[in-house]
Amino acid sequence: MNKVSIISIGDELLIGQTINTNAAYIGEKLTALGYEVLKTFVVGDSKEDILIVLREAESISDFIFITGGLGPTHDDITRSCILQYFNTRLVFHEETFERIKKLFERRNIAMPEINRDQAMVPEIAKVIPNDYGTAPGYDIEKDGKRFFVMPGVPHEMKGMMESTILPDLKRLIQSKGIFYNQILLYTTGIPESALYSKLQDLYPLFEEVKVAFLPSQFGVKIRLSYRSESEELNLKKIKFVEEKIYERVGDYIYSNEKPAIEEVIGIILTEKKLKLAVAESCTGGLLCDRITNVPGSSNYFERGVVSYSNESKIQILGVNPETIKTFGAVSEQTAIEMARGVRNISNADIGLATTGIMGPTGATETKPIGLVFIGYSDKNREFAKQFNFADNRIRNKERTSQAALEILWRMLTGREVN
Amino acid sequence: MNKVSIISIGDELLIGQTINTNAAYIGEKLTALGYEVLKTFVVGDSKEDILIVLREAESISDFIFITGGLGPTHDDITRSCILQYFNTRLVFHEETFERIKKLFERRNIAMPEINRDQAMVPEIAKVIPNDYGTAPGYDIEKDGKRFFVMPGVPHEMKGMMESTILPDLKRLIQSKGIFYNQILLYTTGIPESALYSKLQDLYPLFEEVKVAFLPSQFGVKIRLSYRSESEELNLKKIKFVEEKIYERVGDYIYSNEKPAIEEVIGIILTEKKLKLAVAESCTGGLLCDRITNVPGSSNYFERGVVSYSNESKIQILGVNPETIKTFGAVSEQTAIEMARGVRNISNADIGLATTGIMGPTGATETKPIGLVFIGYSDKNREFAKQFNFADNRIRNKERTSQAALEILWRMLTGREVN
Repeated sequence: MNKVSIISIGDELLIGQTINTNAAYIGEKLTALGYEVLKTFVVGDSKEDILIVLREAESISDFIFITGGLGPTHDDITRSCILQYFNTRLVFHEETFERIKKLFERRNIAMPEINRDQAMVPEIAKVIPNDYGTAPGYDIEKDGKRFFVMPGVPHEMKGMMESTILPDLKRLIQSKGIFYNQILLYTTGIPESALYSKLQDLYPLFEEVKVAFLPSQFGVKIRLSYRSESEELNLKKIKFVEEKIYERVGDYIYSNEKPAIEEVIGIILTEKKLKLAVAESCTGGLLCDRITNVPGSSNYFERGVVSYSNESKIQILGVNPETIKTFGAVSEQTAIEMARGVRNISNADIGLATTGIMGPTGATETKPIGLVFIGYSDKNREFAKQFNFADNRIRNKERTSQAALEILWRMLTGREVN
Repeated sequence: MNKVSIISIGDELLIGQTINTNAAYIGEKLTALGYEVLKTFVVGDSKEDILIVLREAESISDFIFITGGLGPTHDDITRSCILQYFNTRLVFHEETFERIKKLFERRNIAMPEINRDQAMVPEIAKVIPNDYGTAPGYDIEKDGKRFFVMPGVPHEMKGMMESTILPDLKRLIQSKGIFYNQILLYTTGIPESALYSKLQDLYPLFEEVKVAFLPSQFGVKIRLSYRSESEELNLKKIKFVEEKIYERVGDYIYSNEKPAIEEVIGIILTEKKLKLAVAESCTGGLLCDRITNVPGSSNYFERGVVSYSNESKIQILGVNPETIKTFGAVSEQTAIEMARGVRNISNADIGLATTGIMGPTGATETKPIGLVFIGYSDKNREFAKQFNFADNRIRNKERTSQAALEILWRMLTGREVN
């Protein structure tokens, strides 16, 4: 009775022009409410194919989510499929007409005839208003099944989900006495297999509270979830396992709330009233970019220097030319001098630096692609740590930036840097 | 006879933990060869569901691509579904066993029993070797239909596609006398609607050569494609329309080959032996990051300064404190002085600078979120251009970096900057 199918409509999805992020979004949100997503169908702009998958989705599920093909142009055929499938007709929807009219008024554009037609909606449907575009969504109930029809433009679809559909479906499932809760533990600096084996003695517990390991390029997320007739019970069960996991691998968990380590770092720097300065060679700006993606980062991020050339390392950061000559630009010594240099010139409390060989060129006999040194400097401690990321250029940059942020987070939280 | 279905297997896809990039990749590559992708099915790790979609996919298509569920753990059930569906049995595959053994030897790890089992393959299958992981792929032919079964790990799947499947399917479709060709024209700095209306008189041509407009956050791609029994004819037809498009909107087309404008810029800077230096305030490192994503960028990218604080603008770049006091850090004057400053200190030929208000905080009565100035300086010319990107923080950073790169490209190619 909580089974869901998703139908994504559009040629652009089949030919790979557009990646189907909508289905992932809908799947994630509904799973988090306790619904069970069974299947996703992707079909092109073909009436026949759409009608076939509608029948199929209805036969296996209670809730059917349909996105795409509601635009005003000739290849948007979802509405006419709905008319045929439900054997209904178009009626004029005053509120939608007024909403679309206002949208164009705000943009100072005369409303094109093609958009006027979008106020005609299937008689059987309850209209879901669109806060971000012209096409209305439809909420259709038939024989105990619910169909939600939405535009394919992601932020229009998400607007409808968040303002109307998700709150409604949350009430609905809770009224049936089903509660689902989950938390995510964000780890970094430890591979999935090592994490898994450190938690070995907890496996029996994982059969009760559902535990999943989700690796990404920046770390492994651990998801704990529980479903029962009581929210209180769920939270208690999850908490119990969460604490056991923290006991074993808490050293690698940077948050149970914030997905990005740079955000966690921002909160700590703000609390401790510390300023950060960064000197990047091999990461080429990515490290600063990630730090400044956090709103309010100008409060603690003082400056960054992308010292790509040796001259810039010497001239701006004050790295000793002899250091570069003796040990090379990619060395422990240079990394430390870069971190110290950027801290000194900026009067920041902490200096962080990266230098390495990202590839595909630049390797030498003693310095292979992926060799990286990350330098750290504050008033009490200076060091550089070596890494070997034998990956491609972009991945090497990503992994280096993550390792640098991990070192910073470890120092800020009094953890060991090994 | 060229109809394709894709089956993506895995709970992680349904619950939105993983976005289905595999289906987009397969769809794009097969479309480019001239195949027609009809449908994608996403199902969880359920034997029953997998068998149902296998039957369905077989009934509507000639080529069925299956990814996911080939790993060594208990929830990887694709292989046993294949055994049941084709009524075949497992046989030991010597070459695969040797390949997996070597993989572990290279990593200096003893081969676990669980991986040994992966050398057992369905008797009916031709093995597709995996260059990047343990699980072999299967190529199965039955009643004139082809099934390709691959792991879900994207780079393992892509490795099999590129080394084995795509070359094979290219020969196959060409042997049937079907040729498909396409080119992409990459534009920037012009919205889809404006582009479309500038090409109005060409619409009749678009019915013959298929033309599609593909907007993204960095610009609009125009795809021209043609399918016939002759590659020569395809290229001639496409060339004819391409030239007409260049005549009308060539001013916005930065490449018909390279997707990233930073790569095009890199080629020009290398050819002209010019050095670039960058001063970023609001983009916070993103502009340098994009420039240094290009292999070999150290040949022309001298340095970048992420001058987030006013002190760093004054101290490193030599911006006049009076300029900031009088006009503000977000102003035409400051943008020009930043560009000039970074060029001067680095002896680069070109200085490029960004300053703006990215949000969500930092707006004032006269300076709203999204206000941006991009500064440019070379030995002949200095200017700053104003933009108003009223978007969210991340999008504002992306749009500003793109606008800066567009200005640089326009200056390097002798185009107007309006």
